[in-house]
Formats: sequence, C-alpha cells, structure tokens
Amino acid sequence: MKLWGGRFEKSTDELVHRYNASIDFDRRLYAADIQGSQAYARALADAGILTQEELMAILDGLARVQLEFDEQRFPFDPADEDIHSAVERRLHQLIGPVAGKLHTGRSRNDQVATDMRLFMLPEVEGLHAHIVALQAVIVDRAVQHIDLIMPGYTHLQQAQPVLWSHWLMSYFWMLARDSERLEDWRRRAAVSPLGAGALAGTPLELDRAALAADLGLDSISANSLDAVSDRDFVVEFLFCAALLQVHLSRLAEDLIIFSSREFGYVRIDEAYATGSSLMPQKMNPDPLELARGKTGRILGHLVGLLTTLKGLPSAYNKDMQEDKEPVFDALDTLNLTLPILAGIVRTLKVDGDRMASALDEGTLATELADYLVRQGVPFRQSHAIVGQAVRRAAEQDVPLWALSLETLQALHPAFGPDAYQVLDFWEAVEAKSAPGGTATRAVQGQIEKAQDWLQEHSTESTDKAMGF
Amino acid sequence: MKLWGGRFEKSTDELVHRYNASIDFDRRLYAADIQGSQAYARALADAGILTQEELMAILDGLARVQLEFDEQRFPFDPADEDIHSAVERRLHQLIGPVAGKLHTGRSRNDQVATDMRLFMLPEVEGLHAHIVALQAVIVDRAVQHIDLIMPGYTHLQQAQPVLWSHWLMSYFWMLARDSERLEDWRRRAAVSPLGAGALAGTPLELDRAALAADLGLDSISANSLDAVSDRDFVVEFLFCAALLQVHLSRLAEDLIIFSSREFGYVRIDEAYATGSSLMPQKMNPDPLELARGKTGRILGHLVGLLTTLKGLPSAYNKDMQEDKEPVFDALDTLNLTLPILAGIVRTLKVDGDRMASALDEGTLATELADYLVRQGVPFRQSHAIVGQAVRRAAEQDVPLWALSLETLQALHPAFGPDAYQVLDFWEAVEAKSAPGGTATRAVQGQIEKAQDWLQEHSTESTDKAMGF
Amino acid sequence: MKLWGGRFEKSTDELVHRYNASIDFDRRLYAADIQGSQAYARALADAGILTQEELMAILDGLARVQLEFDEQRFPFDPADEDIHSAVERRLHQLIGPVAGKLHTGRSRNDQVATDMRLFMLPEVEGLHAHIVALQAVIVDRAVQHIDLIMPGYTHLQQAQPVLWSHWLMSYFWMLARDSERLEDWRRRAAVSPLGAGALAGTPLELDRAALAADLGLDSISANSLDAVSDRDFVVEFLFCAALLQVHLSRLAEDLIIFSSREFGYVRIDEAYATGSSLMPQKMNPDPLELARGKTGRILGHLVGLLTTLKGLPSAYNKDMQEDKEPVFDALDTLNLTLPILAGIVRTLKVDGDRMASALDEGTLATELADYLVRQGVPFRQSHAIVGQAVRRAAEQDVPLWALSLETLQALHPAFGPDAYQVLDFWEAVEAKSAPGGTATRAVQGQIEKAQDWLQEHSTESTDKAMGF
Amino acid sequence: MKLWGGRFEKSTDELVHRYNASIDFDRRLYAADIQGSQAYARALADAGILTQEELMAILDGLARVQLEFDEQRFPFDPADEDIHSAVERRLHQLIGPVAGKLHTGRSRNDQVATDMRLFMLPEVEGLHAHIVALQAVIVDRAVQHIDLIMPGYTHLQQAQPVLWSHWLMSYFWMLARDSERLEDWRRRAAVSPLGAGALAGTPLELDRAALAADLGLDSISANSLDAVSDRDFVVEFLFCAALLQVHLSRLAEDLIIFSSREFGYVRIDEAYATGSSLMPQKMNPDPLELARGKTGRILGHLVGLLTTLKGLPSAYNKDMQEDKEPVFDALDTLNLTLPILAGIVRTLKVDGDRMASALDEGTLATELADYLVRQGVPFRQSHAIVGQAVRRAAEQDVPLWALSLETLQALHPAFGPDAYQVLDFWEAVEAKSAPGGTATRAVQGQIEKAQDWLQEHSTESTDKAMGF
Repeated sequence: MKLWGGRFEKSTDELVHRYNASIDFDRRLYAADIQGSQAYARALADAGILTQEELMAILDGLARVQLEFDEQRFPFDPADEDIHSAVERRLHQLIGPVAGKLHTGRSRNDQVATDMRLFMLPEVEGLHAHIVALQAVIVDRAVQHIDLIMPGYTHLQQAQPVLWSHWLMSYFWMLARDSERLEDWRRRAAVSPLGAGALAGTPLELDRAALAADLGLDSISANSLDAVSDRDFVVEFLFCAALLQVHLSRLAEDLIIFSSREFGYVRIDEAYATGSSLMPQKMNPDPLELARGKTGRILGHLVGLLTTLKGLPSAYNKDMQEDKEPVFDALDTLNLTLPILAGIVRTLKVDGDRMASALDEGTLATELADYLVRQGVPFRQSHAIVGQAVRRAAEQDVPLWALSLETLQALHPAFGPDAYQVLDFWEAVEAKSAPGGTATRAVQGQIEKAQDWLQEHSTESTDKAMGF
Repeated sequence: MKLWGGRFEKSTDELVHRYNASIDFDRRLYAADIQGSQAYARALADAGILTQEELMAILDGLARVQLEFDEQRFPFDPADEDIHSAVERRLHQLIGPVAGKLHTGRSRNDQVATDMRLFMLPEVEGLHAHIVALQAVIVDRAVQHIDLIMPGYTHLQQAQPVLWSHWLMSYFWMLARDSERLEDWRRRAAVSPLGAGALAGTPLELDRAALAADLGLDSISANSLDAVSDRDFVVEFLFCAALLQVHLSRLAEDLIIFSSREFGYVRIDEAYATGSSLMPQKMNPDPLELARGKTGRILGHLVGLLTTLKGLPSAYNKDMQEDKEPVFDALDTLNLTLPILAGIVRTLKVDGDRMASALDEGTLATELADYLVRQGVPFRQSHAIVGQAVRRAAEQDVPLWALSLETLQALHPAFGPDAYQVLDFWEAVEAKSAPGGTATRAVQGQIEKAQDWLQEHSTESTDKAMGF
Repeated sequence: MKLWGGRFEKSTDELVHRYNASIDFDRRLYAADIQGSQAYARALADAGILTQEELMAILDGLARVQLEFDEQRFPFDPADEDIHSAVERRLHQLIGPVAGKLHTGRSRNDQVATDMRLFMLPEVEGLHAHIVALQAVIVDRAVQHIDLIMPGYTHLQQAQPVLWSHWLMSYFWMLARDSERLEDWRRRAAVSPLGAGALAGTPLELDRAALAADLGLDSISANSLDAVSDRDFVVEFLFCAALLQVHLSRLAEDLIIFSSREFGYVRIDEAYATGSSLMPQKMNPDPLELARGKTGRILGHLVGLLTTLKGLPSAYNKDMQEDKEPVFDALDTLNLTLPILAGIVRTLKVDGDRMASALDEGTLATELADYLVRQGVPFRQSHAIVGQAVRRAAEQDVPLWALSLETLQALHPAFGPDAYQVLDFWEAVEAKSAPGGTATRAVQGQIEKAQDWLQEHSTESTDKAMGF
Repeated sequence: MKLWGGRFEKSTDELVHRYNASIDFDRRLYAADIQGSQAYARALADAGILTQEELMAILDGLARVQLEFDEQRFPFDPADEDIHSAVERRLHQLIGPVAGKLHTGRSRNDQVATDMRLFMLPEVEGLHAHIVALQAVIVDRAVQHIDLIMPGYTHLQQAQPVLWSHWLMSYFWMLARDSERLEDWRRRAAVSPLGAGALAGTPLELDRAALAADLGLDSISANSLDAVSDRDFVVEFLFCAALLQVHLSRLAEDLIIFSSREFGYVRIDEAYATGSSLMPQKMNPDPLELARGKTGRILGHLVGLLTTLKGLPSAYNKDMQEDKEPVFDALDTLNLTLPILAGIVRTLKVDGDRMASALDEGTLATELADYLVRQGVPFRQSHAIVGQAVRRAAEQDVPLWALSLETLQALHPAFGPDAYQVLDFWEAVEAKSAPGGTATRAVQGQIEKAQDWLQEHSTESTDKAMGF
C-alpha cells in the first residue's frame, strides 16, 4: 500500500520504486515502529481522536502484526515501500479502515525519527554491555598475570620495562572512555520527535511529554523542523563506534605483532585462528586482522553520513534515508568484534619467559641517567652522558652493564660502583610507583580503580554480556 | 569443507566462523571464480599436472556447479567459508577426490585477486554503458531545446543568460571524464595475478601469460608479493565511482532547485516523484535527493578501503577481505542511479517561458561594460562604471535599461544611445560564440563534438544500455 | 638544542630534520608548554628534586621566555625541533645548566599530551562562546520577526506554512546540541597525563593529583601507556567541530537559496557579500558558500586523524604528531565562521511580504484532510480524497479553494461549506500549537525555553563573545 | 585593489575580508598567474583588443611583477584578496590604466582554473620524478642483495621463504602504478579553460586553441559552465597522492617492523633516526612513522574536497576556493616523504644472517605437500596430511624435518626418504621460477623488466631527481 498515491496520475517507475524503497533494510525497525504506533494510538485516544474501542482494535491489530514479525511470518508485499507502509498496510488488512486513523497528525518524518531512537537505545545498551564485558576480561587477565614483565614500546622500539598487566590495562581505559561517550550519547538520543508531524508540528491536542514518557524517552524535541531532520544522534553514535573500533584496531595490532614468531609473547588460541588453503603450517590471526581492517568500514560509515548531511536545506530531505544501513552495519560489526576480542584475550596464551628474556638492557639507560640525577647531575646532562655510554657499549658490542667503571667514570666522575645496581629490570619497573605507573603496587591500585569502575557501570545488560 | 583444517586440534569458535566467513557476499563472485578455475585447470593440464581425463572431469564438474548457481539451486553448506571453499567443496561432492587437484600450486590469495578482476571487468563495462546512455540522453534533450534561454548562475545568483542546452551539456563533459577514467582503469585492472600462489609464486611450470590470455586479461603481474596484496584496482574504481556520484549529485542539486515552485524551470515526471504520507499535495523529487545523498555512501566506501589498507604489512592480510562489499554496493548504487537519472532527464518537462521571464536584466551588466570597452574604456574602469549604474538603478528601483542616457553619461561620457541595444538577452547569448561558449552556434558545435565522442566510445554494451 | 643527541654518531639528515620538526606549528602551544613546565617545576620542588632556589631560577626563566613569546621576540633557532626543545634551549641560555633539571622524570611524550590539553581547554571554551553568541543572535531575530509567515519546506518543495521564527529557531537547537557535546568533551579533556613519563610512569615521588590541580585539570590519567598515546580528546573535538560545521552548512544552504533572486526571502547585508571581477551587477553570498564548503575541510581533519590512529601499536608513535595542525585549523575556521554567520543573521534583511505571497495554497491540503478527519473520515482515506482534490485543481489549473463544493462533495459527501474556512495560511500555522509546533504561542514558548538555555549556559566567555 | 566594488555602497566586513581572502595561500600561484596573463594579453592583441604598444606595456609590466615575486620583494597590500587581484593591482601601479584592459572578457573564474592547471602540471611532473627516483633506489638495492633469503609473510606470520630483493621489488610495482596514474592524469589536466569567462564564454574573437597552445596545454574545454567549475583534475590528483601515500605507509610499516629489535632484519641509518628526550638509548624510526601517519592527512584532503564538491549547484561557487590548500599540502608532504624514503632505502643496513636464521622450517610445509602431489596425491589431501605432520611436530616440539619417516609414512605411505630433500629453504625459493615468482632467476627477470620500465619513464625531471 502506498501511503500517498492520491494526487498522482501515473504509477511510479519500477527502478524508482526499488531506489526509494527502504523496506529491505528498515524492516529491522519493526519492533520500534510498532512500539511507536502503540504509544501513538494511546495518545490519540487520550486526545479524543480514537474511541476506546478503536484504540483496542488498533492495539490488538498491532500486537498481531508484531507476532507475525517475531515469528518471521509477516507477509511482505512487493509494493511495501518501508516498514511504516508495511505495518500500516498489514494493520489495515487485519482490522479494516480503522487502521487508517492511526496516521492522523503523524508523518513518516516524525515516525521514522522516533523509530530510529527507539531502535537504537536498547541496541546501544547491548553494545555498551559488550564493551564492559571486554573490559572485565582485561581486568581478569591483568590480575592473573600481575607478575609478568615485558619490554614496553614506543615507536615499536623497546623503551622501558613494564608489567604485562600494565600494558593490557591501557586498553581498559580506552574502552572506559568509549563507554562513557555512549552514556553521554544516551541523553541526546532519548528525545521524542513524535508530534512534530511532517515538519510543522501536530494540529492535535497531544500531550507530547506523556507520549515521550510512554515510549521510555526522557524529553521532547523543542522544534518540529529540527525534530524531523535531526540525525545528530545517528552521526554521534557512528563517531563513538568509529573511535571504539580504532581502539580495538590498536589492541589487534599489538596482538598481531606480539603473536608473530619473531616476538612470540602471546599465542592466540586455535579456536580464534585460521589456516591457509595452500600452506599447511599456517595459523593466522584472522579475526584480529578483521578487527583492524573493519575500522575502515565504520569510519566510512561516519564519513558517509556526515557528507550526506552536508549542505542539506531545512527540514526533511530524502537524503536522510541513508542514515540506517550504516547504523545497522556498525552494530553488527561491533557486536561480533567485541565478544571475539573478549574471547581472544580470555584464552590468550602468554609466554612470560619469552617476554622477560626479550628485554634489552638498553631499556635501563634511563635508570642510569636517573642515578646520575641523584648524584646531582642535571637530567639533561646525565641523559647526554648515558647516551654516550650506550654508544660506547654498542661500539664494543656488549651490554650496558658490561661497561667498566673506568669507562663510565671517564664519561662522568659521579658514577660509582652502585651504578650497576640500578641496571635491573624489576627495579626499573618498581621505581614507577606513582599512580598510573607500572610498578606492581601502582598497577594493583589501577586494577582496583578499574574494578570500581566496572561496579559503577554494570547493569543487567552488562551482566548478561559477561555471562553471569 | 574447510580448506585448511589439518594442523588444528580445535574447531573454530562459532562467532569467529561468522566473522571470517565471506560467503554471504562473495558468492556473487561465483561465475568469476568458476571461470578462473576452468582456465587454471587447463593450465594445470598444459603443465602436465592434470591428465586430459582429469581435466575433463574437472571442467565438467565446474560446468555443473555453474549451472547450479545460475539456476539458484546451489546447495550452500553452513561450513562454507567463502566462494572458493564452496565451489571446491561442491566440486568434490560431484566428481570426487580429483577435485582436490585443482588447488595445486594455487592459493586463495591469488585466486581471490583474480576473481575480483574477472568479476569487475564486465561489471565496470556495464556501468560505463550506463554512463554513456545518460550522456546520450543529455545530448538528445540539448538538441531538442536548443532554442531555450535561461539565467546562468554562479553562487546561485543570476550571472549571465545562457542556453538551457548549454547548461545541460555541461554535465555531458563531466560524465565524459568519468567514462575516460574508467577506460584508463581497465589497463590496470586487466592484469592476471594467477600463479602468484600464496605470496611467493608457483612451483609449477605454468605459462602464466597463456593463462592470462585464456582469462581475457592483458598481462601478468610482475611480482607475486604485490600480486596477492594489490587492491589498487579496487580503490581506483571506488574513486572513479565516488567522483562520478559527485557529478550526479550536482546534476541532482540543480534539478531539485530548478524544480522547486520558486524556480519552476523544470518539472520531474510523476513517474519519478513520490508523495507524502501526511501532506496530500506533495510531489517530491526523492530519486534526485537519493542520488545526491548516496554520494556520502560511495565516498564512505572509498575512505573505508583506503583506511583499511593504510599501514598494512607486506603481502596478504585478512584486512583485505574488506574490499568486496564496497565494490558490490557502489556498482548496485550506480546501476540504479544512472538509468534513473537518464529517465528523469529524458522525461523532464522544461518550462521555457518561465526560464526566459525569470531573467533579470542585471545579467546584462557585463554587456554594458563590454560596450564601454568597445568605446576604448579599459575593462576595469568600465566594470566600475557599470557597477555604479547598477547601484543607481537599484536605488531608483528600476531596471538597468530604464536609466536615462543622462544618468549613464554622467557616469561616463562614452555612453551613447546605442548602449541600450546591447541590453538584450539573446544578443548577450549569441555574443559568446567562441568554442565552448553559450552562443547557439557554439553549442551546436559542442553537440557535434559530443556526438563524435559518443560514436567513438560506443560499444555493444552501450548500445544495449541505450536500448538499441 | 637537540634533547637526545648523546648516543648518535651522525647528525640528522637535513630533510629528516624538516620532516620531523613540528616547531613551525606547535609554537602555538608555547603558553601551554610554559604553564605545564611551571607547574612541573613546582611539583619537582615539592618532591625534593629542585631546591627552592633552583625552582625560583626556573620559574623566573620561564616567565622571561613567556614574555619573549608574548612580545613576539622569542629567538628561534634553526635547530629547534619542537616547542619543548625551543623553550628548554632558551631557558638554558637564560639561566644555565639548572634548566637541565626541569626535564627530570618527564618525557616529551607526557609533556606534549599535557600541552595539548592545556591549550585546547580555553580555546574550546572560546569556541563554545562563539556558538552561544550565534544562538543569542538567532533568538533575537526570532523574537523580532515572530509575526512573519513563510512556506515550510521538505524536499525543497513547499510543505506547510510555518513562522519564519520557527524556521530560524530550528538552528538554535542544533547549536545547543553542539554546545552540550563540547561540555561533555571537557570532562574527558581535563585529565592530566603529566607524570606518565615516556610510557612507564615517573620514578619520582610526584603528587600527580596536586600537579593536575595546579594545572586546573580535574583528574589524572590512570595508566601511563594510555596517557602518552591517548588522542581521544583531540579526535572527539574534531568530531564535534565537524558536526557543528555540518549544521552551519545547512544554515548557509538555506540562506543561499532564500537569498537567490527566485526565492527572494532574505537579503544578505552588503558588508557580507562580494562581487565579481567580470560581472558588475553581482552580489554573491561568498561567506555562506565558504561556511558550507569548509565542512569538507573539517571533516577531512577528522578522517585524517582517525586514519592516522588506526592500527598503531601500543603507546607513543611519531604518527601522533599529526594531531596538532587539524586542531589549529578547525579552531581558526570555526572562530571565523561563527561570528561571520552571527553577523549575517544579525543584519539579514527579511522580506515578509515576499515570503507570505510565495505561499502556495497546496500547503493547505493537509488542513483539508484534517477537516475530513474531524467529520469522522479515517486519515488515510481523507488523505487520498484530498490528493484527488489537489489533482482536480491542478487539472483545472485553479487553486484548491477555487474547487466548487460540488466537486469536493463528489469526492466525499462529508465536505461542507465550512471546509473552505480551513484553507487559511495563518489558521494552519496556529493549529500547530502543541509544544515544538509552529503556532505563535508554541514558538513563543520555544523562545522562552531557549532564553533559559542561554541563561544556563552563559559564562564570562560567552558574555565576551556576545559583546556584553 | 578590489576588482568588484562599483555597485557596493558598504565596505566589506573585516572578518569577511579575512575569510574570503585567499592571498595567504594562493600567492603560490603567482608564476602560473603571470604566465596565464602573458598568454592572454597576446591573445587579446591577436584579437585586436590590445594594440601592439599596449601589449608590450602589459608584457613588460608583468615581467617586472614576476621579478618582484621571484626576488621576494613583491609589495603585498592588505586589501589584496587573491593573487589575481594582487597582480592586477600591482600591474596598474607599474603601468597605469592600460593594465585595466587585461581583464577584458576574462573572469577570475576561468583565470583561477587556468592558474591551477598551469601550476600543477610542472609540480606533478616533479613529484613523478621523486617517485621514479625512489623506484630506482629500490632496483639498486634489489640488485645488490639478490643473494639474501628471508621469511615471506602473510598475516605477519611466516609463510614461505622469499628473496629479500623480491620483497623489496614488490614496492617498485606499486610505485609504477602510481607513476602511470599520474601520467593518465596529465591528459585530463592539460586542458585550457581560458576563454570560458565567468561561466558563459567569451564575447571576444579569441582563438582559444592557439591560446591553449601558447600555455603549453593540449586542448580546450568544451563547455564554459563546466570549465569554470571543473575541479576533477584536482580531486584526481589528490586521489593519486592518497593511494601513493598508502603504498608508502605499507613500506614504512614493513621497515618499522623489520627494524624492531625482535625482527632485526634491517637497521635504519642514524641520519634517518631520532632519539628520545627521556630515554638515552632510543633510536626511533620517526620518519617512517610520519610517512605512515601522514596517510591520514592526504586522505583527509581527498575526502575534504569531495565532500566540498558534493551537491554544489551549477557553475562556479565559492566553495571551490577550498581546492588549493590540499594540493599544496599534498605536494609538500610527498616532496619530503619520497626523497626521505629513498634515502632510508639507499642507506639501509640489511642483516642477511639474521633474516636467514629467522626462517622457521614450518615455511617448508607447502614443499612437503607438493612432494606428495608429485607422488600422485591430490593437493587438497596432501595439504591435510602435511597439516597433521606439522601438528605432530609441534606436539613433539621438534622441527618438521625431525619427524621420523615412520611417522610420515603413518600419515601417508607415499612419503619416501627423499621427502626430506625438499625441506630446504633455498630449494623452496628456487622452485618458484615462473615469472613473478621468488626464484633468483625470476627476480632477475623482474629486475630487468623494472629497468626497462625506468628507461621508458625517465625524463629530464627524473634524471634531476635521481641526482644525475
């Protein structure tokens, strides 16, 4: 059923019907659409537009439509343009002309804006739960391996020794920011556009605030023109998704490098690896590469929608129909990526010996500079002196600690025999004991802070995602 | 059938299987995959790896698989990872273990790179034909309405009068560049990676050049590492698609503005318009808005793939699997957008009277400046003088031609009574007679050039797309 | 002065020096860098690393450096790599070797992360004030012209009559969301990374929380690896900027269209228009076009940084240096765009007569459908009937209200003579009286809400931006 | 000097002047602008608009302006809007009112489009030369180290042994495609828009083809509306630049990973590395990271301009002014990145022993599968069998070649004692002897092909870039 044929003499070109139709993807909004219509029907009854009887007929009919969708037996019609048309058409078939009263004062413009919000709120809550579940796994593994030391890297060059748990926990905080951004997002998403009509508002005596409350939304839109063309909540979600995926791409990159034969710090469980059709020995971290690669995909969605919105004139334009597929795809992508990464981290084999033995003594150079600082040498000078010591060691092809005291003292007289004592990986780690540092005690403090965070941000959804 | 299970003890995590699997979208490559396998089987036979009998069995089996796909009765298996696995698995079911010989010396890495090229070449030819068909419609309408005058715009402000056909033809040349870019693309796409193996080349005595020729490709890749990870031809296509869609978005924008009630220059045929679910009078140019809005979508695909490729280490990485969906979607989008725009342009109602009467006499100011130039006044000065005349007319709220000769001469004595003669819209148009200008004769020349272009670039595919 | 030469035998390649050096742009961070160093020096003194005397020397030296910058007489050196090196080098020249103590336990990694936060917080507050100032201008004009009616558009086709103030106010709420997003951003930006060292934390007994407080920041980073490589606050700002610019591009597009000769609803003040070098009559809305066009620029910055961050391994990588220029450019762009748009809106000539007379009676069709609804006809049916009435009027080439009662009753018997009374533009406007609608009373309510919003979000900075 | 003030009563708002003005960046076009004006003056003389004397005065004046720019003593004026205004203003100062004749029939719209083409053609030729120079260095190093073997990677896991030269040469071919794309680009860039006027063409009797030839351009634009708003050549260049930078980012990533301590395959020369302000031992591959990170920057430029162009109405709009800065920045970025990468590759220390000893015997598994194929086992089956052998070896924690013949024969009876002979890295390499493979002979063939390519594509510019 077309919702708008009256003034047209000609029928729509077949290609145009296919081009315009959104039913292939927006059918996913069916529950939100029906939920919106149920509340709207109640509001129409409250406003005296529907009799109690008509209301009952409509609610009953909508419940039947819902069931047909739930049980995947909804009879689609080739002429259905979108989910709104399909639901209204079916409702009409089930309950007759009274169905035609449901759209009174409502436009697909305010309807679809409402649907998207109703659809996204629980979906984003589910996504949020997946983030929190990954954070929880990270904390678990950090607790478990608190005694492992590894080279910390900057520029992919060994920098200073750190705890493996400290490295892993760095991802906890990226994800915490992602979580919090989505919590902020909720405030701007839980707004009801219903009652904005096509663009000018509703001529009915609707109690928009009560309608919003019925829908579980926090507030109502303040301007009907804005209400029907505001896609900020969609764009902002895509941004949150893109930045989240960037964080996951970094975790993936670390794990891909650390699980190379040359690093050998971790091993992906076989259940998360795949092989080669040609090379029998291969065990590839495919899901990590996809987690990295799909960053492009979600960034593409964000760019796409921002570009689509650029320069659009006032109120609703059809271009805005392009808002749905990116959201669906971003949700689907992250709803797979997050639990898979949680599974990979949970089952990761960590090779503590390999990591410890990989440590280059050059990572202790800063300790030696700090030693000189304690002897009163300004840091900038001590840095230069130790730099020369490193060069001396490289020329002699020996580790830093094999330089003789004479050699050191030739560089600066403040070097004493106790200088060699600071050249210890664990000591270097434990020296970074201020909050946020890599010392065991600091990491333990960090983990406690993270556990508090988890406590504070856990909900029913997160419990479910974590498998409790 | 997994193509790689041997060395694994554990089975793949179910989520990972879904995450890795590409069968849901790459099934679209089936014909290319089978074509590639047929040629590869012949090459294996030439190299003595397959007996004639084995070759026949394989070719026959592949033909049966192809038929199953063509008739949409190919029996997919939940374990199928990708189109290559599905085809090989099915071949094995149909012809037994000899199917296992087909993959000798071949990897999915060179196979999929070949498939994409074989798939895209005819698809892009088809797309090219749709472009040419739109160009042909543009020429037809330009010929038909060569006698219509309209305001030409810059900054959406009336600038100078132009022929409607001149305006329309400007889109011909944008599309001509799009066509030519795709022709250049072909050279880089028609290269055979087959024989690159997983990354190192093939250990078989394959005649790669003959194999390429059998596939209808022009040349072979020069380096196997590059061959399996080169996605340039995909990215370059997405770029061509994005720029093409930008051009279409500009045509759409012009038509949206010109078909507004306020401009009223053109009317979209009803078959290409849609209505409102709330407002009975509405007739909206939805397909034009989608053509404009989908620019974001294709730009998003381009950005996505470039971002995915950024910083990947050498040779094949799983991230590259992300190359397919954007191509499919870009093709689908353009294969609808182009014929719909062709239909809209073909059936457009053009209101010549409205356009002519919309012309503001201010668009003739440049003619007046040129008049002064002919009296020997340097252009920069004559521009300033006429600017003052325009201001004077605005102050008096009269058209330019209603200024008295005294007023004009007060601005510059070189104004004579013949100055008023240049204030004629058609004269202004016909004065721009150098090639590329808007004079009728110049536009006719332009149209001839366009017709030559069409002649030169027409192929069987374009004839088909144009409905010959 | 190089901060790291000790271990190197060779000097840096000249091109590499230019490639790596950020001093050409990061000099803009000088005040933040010095502010950070002053607080850090105090923290070093508190931790016993600096004597009181050394502290005084350093603080005094830093103040002198600051003055040199403020007075634009800081003596740059070709060897300065970045602002940190330049300041430290100069400090050394001014106060001698004690300057070398300032970098104790600090790395440029935590330093630059701190600098960017210290720089951005006041800058973003200033930007926020420009947004609020534009919002205030919008409210002023909405109050002033509350009695003007105009066609409301969807799909750039006339839809329903609305108040001009209602149209204008729609931009208030987009900007309100932009403002609120930047307020949320602050929470994630006002975090101190100082004390994270190069990546592993500080070996000094620093009170990081006190240091953060000294810097005016709210909290400290929880993980040193994350602290030095977290650019989320930069990306999130760029996103806020991009979405803000998208909103401005829509306002610009509306004004460009409305100020075309064909619409003629508004006129840009001459001070905000520019002319043509060729066409003397031209008055172009260049700044509006730039406001629209620069959306690409800021979106490009957002995309660029997200792409740069994608797939980076743990902790600091030099790629992250690419975070600064986009921020500077986004700030500069918006700090011009916002006040210019405020100026344009403030000085806009609004042609109420032209807007009123442009109203097409078709925009009342929905009122007629609502009339039938009040007679008991279900909306879907009444929509179809009125659609036919519209078609009938179009066929007869008369306005809707010129259709005879017989004609209407032939379509549906419920039409009575009072049907013609609903065909009134102002009545249609005033009927939309629910909150958020276009009725005068509803728009007045909306304006009050907006004034409350302004009250709530006004600060010293916004007062200044608004010129109070 | 404003080129358009006549009809304006008010002066331009100061912020708007700054917002609109492009002189800060487009001054870089000065030589192109002057070159364009010189040719245009000659064309005006040919058309009888200028006397010979006037022509001489103008040409002489332009030469003086050029000299002022060349010697960096051009006196800019705060009122200069853009390079065209500045040059014309200065010319007027130097030669008087006759300067005002130069702009006859010309608009800044066709002028700037011409300037950009004239500017870009030699610039892109210079860039092309830098690409070719890097390709030449790659060939040199490939020739030098033809005898080094290394692990070839897919998914960053060892896959099969390859020659180091084969790995390196893979980048040659990526760059060859980049070169060829820029050659195709030239055809579309070397088109003259001059004579298109503001949008409608020129009223003068100009010989546009002769004018194009005078400018060194190949052809003239076919439609004046298209001519003034065609920015395809800019976008296409930015795309070529972005894909080129993606290739460079992959080379950078490989070198970053290979120069990590854990891989240790190559060492960046000290002249191309930088240190840490905190950690004295550090030697970081900063320029490689920047080469990787700047991919975001150039991709951002491409996205930005495509977004800017999306949905623009016909002919010139001010948004198009945003085309210049991205081009300048992309050129500057690549003109540094390319020679720096050439320097890094040229001076790279390659550790052949380390690479050879890093080879895992698992990379020979495919050879074993091929052995079974030669015994008549279908590849798919042999792959599975060898997969099990690999697993068996892993369980026993021994290399593949330490499995006993009994163990192998238990997996398949076709294994004979000669199976062990195929487990040789060099043999595996040399087996891939088909064109494009990694066998020494194949790589030598590849290098010859590359040398031919270089021959064919070398020009004066490339010779210069290569330092000949």
